Amino acid sequence: MKLYDGGRAPNPRRVRIFLAEKGISVPIEPIDLGALQHKSDAYRAINPVQRVPALELDDGTVIGESIAICRYFEALQPEPPLFGRDPKERAVVEMWERRVEFHFLAPVSNVFRHLHPAMSQMEVPQVADYGEASKPKAFAFLEILDRELAGRPFVAGDRFSVADITALVTVDFMKPVKLAMPDNLAHVRRWHSEVSARPSAKA
Amino acid sequence: MKLYDGGRAPNPRRVRIFLAEKGISVPIEPIDLGALQHKSDAYRAINPVQRVPALELDDGTVIGESIAICRYFEALQPEPPLFGRDPKERAVVEMWERRVEFHFLAPVSNVFRHLHPAMSQMEVPQVADYGEASKPKAFAFLEILDRELAGRPFVAGDRFSVADITALVTVDFMKPVKLAMPDNLAHVRRWHSEVSARPSAKA
Repeated sequence: MKLYDGGRAPNPRRVRIFLAEKGISVPIEPIDLGALQHKSDAYRAINPVQRVPALELDDGTVIGESIAICRYFEALQPEPPLFGRDPKERAVVEMWERRVEFHFLAPVSNVFRHLHPAMSQMEVPQVADYGEASKPKAFAFLEILDRELAGRPFVAGDRFSVADITALVTVDFMKPVKLAMPDNLAHVRRWHSEVSARPSAKA
Repeated sequence: MKLYDGGRAPNPRRVRIFLAEKGISVPIEPIDLGALQHKSDAYRAINPVQRVPALELDDGTVIGESIAICRYFEALQPEPPLFGRDPKERAVVEMWERRVEFHFLAPVSNVFRHLHPAMSQMEVPQVADYGEASKPKAFAFLEILDRELAGRPFVAGDRFSVADITALVTVDFMKPVKLAMPDNLAHVRRWHSEVSARPSAKA
């Protein structure tokens, strides 16, 4: 088994944090995004949509998509549960994981993809107006998240879950994207401080 | 239990097809998207991100996000399995479901959201250049899908799965979005004809 990893980008980090929480070690095969290695013919044969990370199993099956990779490891090693423990909790975790992806990670990524000069070869065409329009969407979700975190310790409930991992990598990705965390979001700040103190956050 | 439904939009249809495949009936509460009912304070109290569908359980818990709702029903009634049968198959189904969402449903939706006059109150601001830039992305994914479907009957393998449901609603959504299916994609056309003939496709 090996994990095609893309270094500092948010999606590869999601999987590394997940593995660290599980205490699972997987051999890493680095993919150099800056050199556009993920756009090469060799990598396209591994992952037709040319994204990282991707997990290659010993039988040659390749699992793309960060959350599909995480769920595969959850099935292999259920403890500690990071996708919820029963049907209702699993649905609530998946709901929040997806809300964080669609309404927070996606707009922050779109700010980066459509406004950062480093992305001019990867995001063609860059549409600067769309990058700008994505900024208030990211902040609007942070306001929703702040209200939710006023009433519970973690994004999806009383326990740390994969939804916290997606939210953590997104908050940390705001820094290179040059989006400042608003001062008034006290509950998001409290949560971010707590999840950042977990050893897995160094992954 | 009741399902807040949004009529003809792709996401509500995904859940209705899933329920039809399972033979599960859930009381429907219609939400009028045309009248912006999903943007009302009453609906915001049900779903803070103001999207449909949403499933309200008897204990008052609300599950948003189509795939979270589908996975909840998969847990309650595993047969027929629509998310895969073992860890590897479940990972492959989730990978394809997400690829279809991110690289096909998302760009087709963005064509609609950013170019259709009916969306001017829902997508603020509409960025026409981004709508245009989304068109080749949708077609690029269809080419990938066509190559995949040359070698297997369904999107994620030998069995119908939730990945087929997401792909079906997206292909059908191309019509109101005014994106024509290219003539040369014979495998996508074969697959679409087969999945459209299933009784669930009427949902």
